[in-house]
Amino acid sequence: MPLVYLTRRERFNAAHKLHREEWDDQKNLEVFGKCANPNWHGHNYTLWVTAKGEPDPITGYVLNLADLRDVVREKVTDKLDHRNLNLDVDFLKGIQPSTENLAVAIWEELVEEVKKLGGELHSIKVEETENNSVEYFGE
Amino acid sequence: MPLVYLTRRERFNAAHKLHREEWDDQKNLEVFGKCANPNWHGHNYTLWVTAKGEPDPITGYVLNLADLRDVVREKVTDKLDHRNLNLDVDFLKGIQPSTENLAVAIWEELVEEVKKLGGELHSIKVEETENNSVEYFGE
Amino acid sequence: MPLVYLTRRERFNAAHKLHREEWDDQKNLEVFGKCANPNWHGHNYTLWVTAKGEPDPITGYVLNLADLRDVVREKVTDKLDHRNLNLDVDFLKGIQPSTENLAVAIWEELVEEVKKLGGELHSIKVEETENNSVEYFGE
Amino acid sequence: MPLVYLTRRERFNAAHKLHREEWDDQKNLEVFGKCANPNWHGHNYTLWVTAKGEPDPITGYVLNLADLRDVVREKVTDKLDHRNLNLDVDFLKGIQPSTENLAVAIWEELVEEVKKLGGELHSIKVEETENNSVEYFGE
Amino acid sequence: MPLVYLTRRERFNAAHKLHREEWDDQKNLEVFGKCANPNWHGHNYTLWVTAKGEPDPITGYVLNLADLRDVVREKVTDKLDHRNLNLDVDFLKGIQPSTENLAVAIWEELVEEVKKLGGELHSIKVEETENNSVEYFGE
Amino acid sequence: MPLVYLTRRERFNAAHKLHREEWDDQKNLEVFGKCANPNWHGHNYTLWVTAKGEPDPITGYVLNLADLRDVVREKVTDKLDHRNLNLDVDFLKGIQPSTENLAVAIWEELVEEVKKLGGELHSIKVEETENNSVEYFGE
Repeated sequence: MPLVYLTRRERFNAAHKLHREEWDDQKNLEVFGKCANPNWHGHNYTLWVTAKGEPDPITGYVLNLADLRDVVREKVTDKLDHRNLNLDVDFLKGIQPSTENLAVAIWEELVEEVKKLGGELHSIKVEETENNSVEYFGE
Repeated sequence: MPLVYLTRRERFNAAHKLHREEWDDQKNLEVFGKCANPNWHGHNYTLWVTAKGEPDPITGYVLNLADLRDVVREKVTDKLDHRNLNLDVDFLKGIQPSTENLAVAIWEELVEEVKKLGGELHSIKVEETENNSVEYFGE
Repeated sequence: MPLVYLTRRERFNAAHKLHREEWDDQKNLEVFGKCANPNWHGHNYTLWVTAKGEPDPITGYVLNLADLRDVVREKVTDKLDHRNLNLDVDFLKGIQPSTENLAVAIWEELVEEVKKLGGELHSIKVEETENNSVEYFGE
Repeated sequence: MPLVYLTRRERFNAAHKLHREEWDDQKNLEVFGKCANPNWHGHNYTLWVTAKGEPDPITGYVLNLADLRDVVREKVTDKLDHRNLNLDVDFLKGIQPSTENLAVAIWEELVEEVKKLGGELHSIKVEETENNSVEYFGE
Repeated sequence: MPLVYLTRRERFNAAHKLHREEWDDQKNLEVFGKCANPNWHGHNYTLWVTAKGEPDPITGYVLNLADLRDVVREKVTDKLDHRNLNLDVDFLKGIQPSTENLAVAIWEELVEEVKKLGGELHSIKVEETENNSVEYFGE
Repeated sequence: MPLVYLTRRERFNAAHKLHREEWDDQKNLEVFGKCANPNWHGHNYTLWVTAKGEPDPITGYVLNLADLRDVVREKVTDKLDHRNLNLDVDFLKGIQPSTENLAVAIWEELVEEVKKLGGELHSIKVEETENNSVEYFGE
């Protein structure tokens, strides 16, 4: 049976900054550059969630994409959209909101949920700007 | 020798619906949602065909991209463009035209053709909307 | 007071064909080319609705974009999405569903609605493929 | 002599919120929706600056695009990028940072600068998300 | 009768440089910057041709878009694609190939041709990079 | 520890042609088609450089993306941008500038540099046009 990879794109707009509280502004600026601006900045993030599985012989679906969309929104993007990634998001508490860490945290939110839908989570890709993105495969 | 992956994008615009003839409209609607609209709907599909191989030391080509373009058009997109995926396409007869099944069917059309061009088919990616896509690697 | 132009993008996926019932298939093919395929084809249409007005001094809004989004969806894209433009849409009855006619018909659906929101409709732009689009300014 | 319109795109990533200090959270939420989140949110803004003029017969330039780029960065995007539009930007003090007001404020920053470069400012377009944008022509 | 604006996108990939033969390399570099590289550079240009007219009551077409595509290719992009804009193009002889001059020259090639198709040329837009573009309206 | 893939996009605009000096124009045209135009043509190339590594527990960074950007520009895109790939680039001497060979050559320029930044180079992707791209993984 063929193994097919299915990707859903969702988007969210959020504020964040990169900083360490134990460092002063000067050190934060040296390490994080303009991402350390104390008054925050923000992005239009794009998220691609890829699940894999064998298409159902009746429906032709690896899993129902509307279900995948709903679970991504409920567990992830509704919690991130128009929020502050440092302050407002339960599953990011204590996590430096770099794009790398964001992708790993989103993986953790979704890996079991995708199993419930009948697929297997393959990758999480997060684009912060048109020039910068990360991808995580769960390993 | 380096192994390089070469991708050609082609596009086609087609109508389709997802339904099972043995189910009534109500059941089709429950399973397939708005994709079950009896009078069809359609998409601008984008197709990426990726072949791999070692670049020729004289030409620098894995394979001639114009040849790849021509075979993708002849065997696939000319048969799909401005057509009905449920009714008009020889290589989709009896296949539920989900994006998943479409990618697998396109793989089957191209896997031997790419060999004739001197490369090996690596993946078929089909995007149905900017939010939904699938990829198939032949396994 | 400044006059600002505000644009909302929405998308819909629909089937259609271009044909005249009083013409035979041969004549339809000559005039409309592959758009005349009897079994339909389809597109991912993109719609940009532009309204103009003076920003409110308190809110900074020409009009509430969420309201504009809602009215565009209710009056236009919910009726078009995953539908057949020749068969399923009340405001397209008797209209040849060329992109040109589609833009004009959408203008008619929205011109009074945008007034109710406190703005003035400026233009309707419809993109059928990445290579083809039309724009209508109500005149 | 031909009159040609020349457009430069620049981008900036910023945090903001829409709110009135004299309103409580409930009223801000009613009027501004999720844009009122007290802890901010943010966007990847895209800015298009269009100047017009007659191409120089020797250089073929309406104005030197590198100069236009530099002045847009110095006067506008360097002040906005990785900043908080409510707190950090001199030319936005006291202005509700809606996309509408942002476009008007950027116009004011650039209208005289473009004259110094030998052109005339024609329009400022600001895109907040791929679905929302505004344009201002100075009137 | 409604007046509708119809746009066709075409693309071409070309080499060029900006320089004045009567100037030495140093002066060319001062005026044109990196665009003066003596050994050429190049771009993927995107061209949007916009025609206007009233949709035909039978076909719904302002003009036949396939005809517009064919004439744009024959008169313009087939002459520009994979060519050197300074050396290879009849309608650019003696013209500094700035994007501004390119748009004006393309207008001259197409203004009468669009009339033959039953429409009126409205604008020529040429994008040189995702950050730089020009538009010309024939005046 | 999670292994995360980090991608930086950079762009460059360059001229090139595909040809063999030992072949006459006719043979070059047969093999390379319009890419053999003796007077050159050019492209807006897009480059994606992907590095992998474990995010630092303090900063959340696989590596500092500003450093990656700087090394990609210094070692690669500053040497390619507004240049002739056949004539002007030290690391392409004697190499047929096909997209395949370009990706391999860029890999060689960056593989050790990315190690110095604390990551491992994973892939080089080069897009020549929106329809054509290649990717190389170092093997």
